[in-house]
Amino acid sequence: MIGASLIAKKRNGEALSASELEQFFSAYSRGAVTEYQMAAWLMAVYFRGLEPAELAAFVETLLRSGITVDLATVPGTKVDKHSTGGVGDKVSLVLAPLVAALGVPVPMMSGRGLGHSGGTVDKLESIPGFRTDLTVAEYRTQLERIGCALISQTAEVAPLDRRLYALRDVTATVESIPLIAASIMSKKLAEGIDALLLDVKLGNGAFLPERDRAEQLARTMIQIGQAHGKRVVALLTAMDRPLGQAVGNALEVAECVATLRGAGPEDLRTLTLAQAAEMLVLGGAAPDLEAGRVAAAGALDDGRAAARFQAIIEAQGGDASVVDDPARLPAAPVRRELVADRDGWVGAMDVRAVGIAAVALGAGRRTLDSSIDPAVGFVIPAKPGMPVSRGGVLATVHAGSAAAAAEALGVLSRAIPVQDVPPPAALPLIAGRMTE
Amino acid sequence: MIGASLIAKKRNGEALSASELEQFFSAYSRGAVTEYQMAAWLMAVYFRGLEPAELAAFVETLLRSGITVDLATVPGTKVDKHSTGGVGDKVSLVLAPLVAALGVPVPMMSGRGLGHSGGTVDKLESIPGFRTDLTVAEYRTQLERIGCALISQTAEVAPLDRRLYALRDVTATVESIPLIAASIMSKKLAEGIDALLLDVKLGNGAFLPERDRAEQLARTMIQIGQAHGKRVVALLTAMDRPLGQAVGNALEVAECVATLRGAGPEDLRTLTLAQAAEMLVLGGAAPDLEAGRVAAAGALDDGRAAARFQAIIEAQGGDASVVDDPARLPAAPVRRELVADRDGWVGAMDVRAVGIAAVALGAGRRTLDSSIDPAVGFVIPAKPGMPVSRGGVLATVHAGSAAAAAEALGVLSRAIPVQDVPPPAALPLIAGRMTE
Repeated sequence: MIGASLIAKKRNGEALSASELEQFFSAYSRGAVTEYQMAAWLMAVYFRGLEPAELAAFVETLLRSGITVDLATVPGTKVDKHSTGGVGDKVSLVLAPLVAALGVPVPMMSGRGLGHSGGTVDKLESIPGFRTDLTVAEYRTQLERIGCALISQTAEVAPLDRRLYALRDVTATVESIPLIAASIMSKKLAEGIDALLLDVKLGNGAFLPERDRAEQLARTMIQIGQAHGKRVVALLTAMDRPLGQAVGNALEVAECVATLRGAGPEDLRTLTLAQAAEMLVLGGAAPDLEAGRVAAAGALDDGRAAARFQAIIEAQGGDASVVDDPARLPAAPVRRELVADRDGWVGAMDVRAVGIAAVALGAGRRTLDSSIDPAVGFVIPAKPGMPVSRGGVLATVHAGSAAAAAEALGVLSRAIPVQDVPPPAALPLIAGRMTE
Repeated sequence: MIGASLIAKKRNGEALSASELEQFFSAYSRGAVTEYQMAAWLMAVYFRGLEPAELAAFVETLLRSGITVDLATVPGTKVDKHSTGGVGDKVSLVLAPLVAALGVPVPMMSGRGLGHSGGTVDKLESIPGFRTDLTVAEYRTQLERIGCALISQTAEVAPLDRRLYALRDVTATVESIPLIAASIMSKKLAEGIDALLLDVKLGNGAFLPERDRAEQLARTMIQIGQAHGKRVVALLTAMDRPLGQAVGNALEVAECVATLRGAGPEDLRTLTLAQAAEMLVLGGAAPDLEAGRVAAAGALDDGRAAARFQAIIEAQGGDASVVDDPARLPAAPVRRELVADRDGWVGAMDVRAVGIAAVALGAGRRTLDSSIDPAVGFVIPAKPGMPVSRGGVLATVHAGSAAAAAEALGVLSRAIPVQDVPPPAALPLIAGRMTE
């Protein structure tokens, strides 16, 4: 009955001690605490939260369930970035080679897309041949050699987190800030990082749209990182519109390649430079943010970042020629344009609906077992507040069939409204910065 | 994913519609909603409660999972009593035959003891041969013939409640007022009653010690009963000391026999008469409570209640001679007295500890599978506020072994303190009455 009494304690708003949590999860691992008891505990945590010491012990438990990668043989301060995810958030593919090109090693283990937001691993896998399932040894060797590896989270890292996430997903206990923070941070701490940049999204396309909840998540993740001796900075950034224009795996890679060559949409470049500056300062490769930003802009504009991306693609078995010729990426057979039916302004966008429409098209997965179509997605030049003329292109749908394209157009026409008056101001691209 | 979305709805504080609840529980019955999803829903209900319409639909779901007994062939207004349970609460054994003897049929399905409180069925089974597992047909026939049957809840009544209770027990979701109220009332509504008296206990030996929570439970049960067209009255009564003196199955039966013969402890007689008066009025056999009380006292004092109890025992296969000769009941081999170690007053008692000590002695079960020893228990003449002299007997332990007796004496000596000053006033025996 130890399970029930520890659930009751949490339910009553008391913190479990480190040894109680250890007892509870060790019983879970041998089946003495059941899935239904864990579900009850997770729901109690949803309502009661976790106190700082309790959260630290919980993160330890997740970490200790798997391996922690030792990157001592990789010289330099290892810095990774994690984004809470959104629609069109492709920054990692530009940022990681860029920062590595400037001398800061970037050990990046990422997830696949789930829900309405895409995942870095899915985007990379739209590059023909690209392997994300490196072994830990391959990951370490590649980091030593070229300062960056972009891989999927291995089954050896925090397996308990994977088991709990599957349970949370079916018991309506995902949306708990301490559980989200512990899940993210346990995986990042296991990667072998010294410092971490967090990109916490705000707005209707974000996992936690409200600013106060997003700040609370950022603060919780920063505290966990600091408790483990890591320097952590969080940026709060806009997800009330897609980032850049491309949504969908190969389309996003093409946009990243453009950005790595010094072009690309302005918002994607600006956010990437801001994040690169943070990582360069965290990694000791720039004295301050402005110097970091200038250095990063230089590496985009002179081809060093693109070259490093090519080296990464080659090292991971992919077709690096896509960087010179993005037309080699998978392309969808059907393209349809959404045009403005009158003069006016683009209104507030339903970014979540855009993300769900992309999943429906095949760009994301409805369940973890679904397969995806790397070619499909959207290119959306429209941004909230942008003036448009009748007939102007708001978005292009790239689809596998005319029927799928028609369905997506219907959703986009509602998600990207054109109206007679300018909408209220959108969120600033970078809406906040937190270090504690 | 319907399971997760309905759990999320409840988690967010929204009420589920009757059809959503129907969908959720029908999926549960075929395994499409799992035990861990139900556990998460139960914990969400613990925190969010159930709104009145939702609660009514939930009670319907529990009821419809099994049979509802039709007692139309039993003439008269059928009235039962339910107590939320406590230590030494043996009222049912006196009350049911008493009220039946005065012409009001009492269809009583009871539970076994669990936790620190005893159960009517366990007490009855300390009478040699007494069968509580009557079939529904036997139950109905006995009610027609002698106006009372005292049986255990059959597996045919609200089986879903049984399954949920087992899950609640191991997931720390027992202590939820709507879940408790629904569990109790679904079983009572299935019995075939027309009206119901509730005895909701207050004080540290009660399931819900605080008055506001006890009142909330009473109000919730009354509302459920009224929604099903039943008249319901609730008494709030004291459980800051054991009721009567005996705690333990055969010891309690002996005390009931004394009370049925017009003797017995004053508090047990007083509470039984008050409850009998309520049931006689509910059953149309008395014009008002005072008349009911007088009639009931008469039936205790002239032997009619005792005779009816004998008829019930005979009908259910038991040795009815225990009513004439309680010495035929099982007796424990070891008796030890707890005596006051100084002059003073009995202080506030830890009634829950007394109940737990009785379970430890073997009078109750630690798990649903444990067997019990009908002979063991306590006789506790001490009441809070009672003056005592050094050497005066506070309690007698009836145990299976000297070691068990010694352990129980240790617990009782702490649970029944003697102090230099009178303690604050105990709760009034009948602390409140509610009809809505």
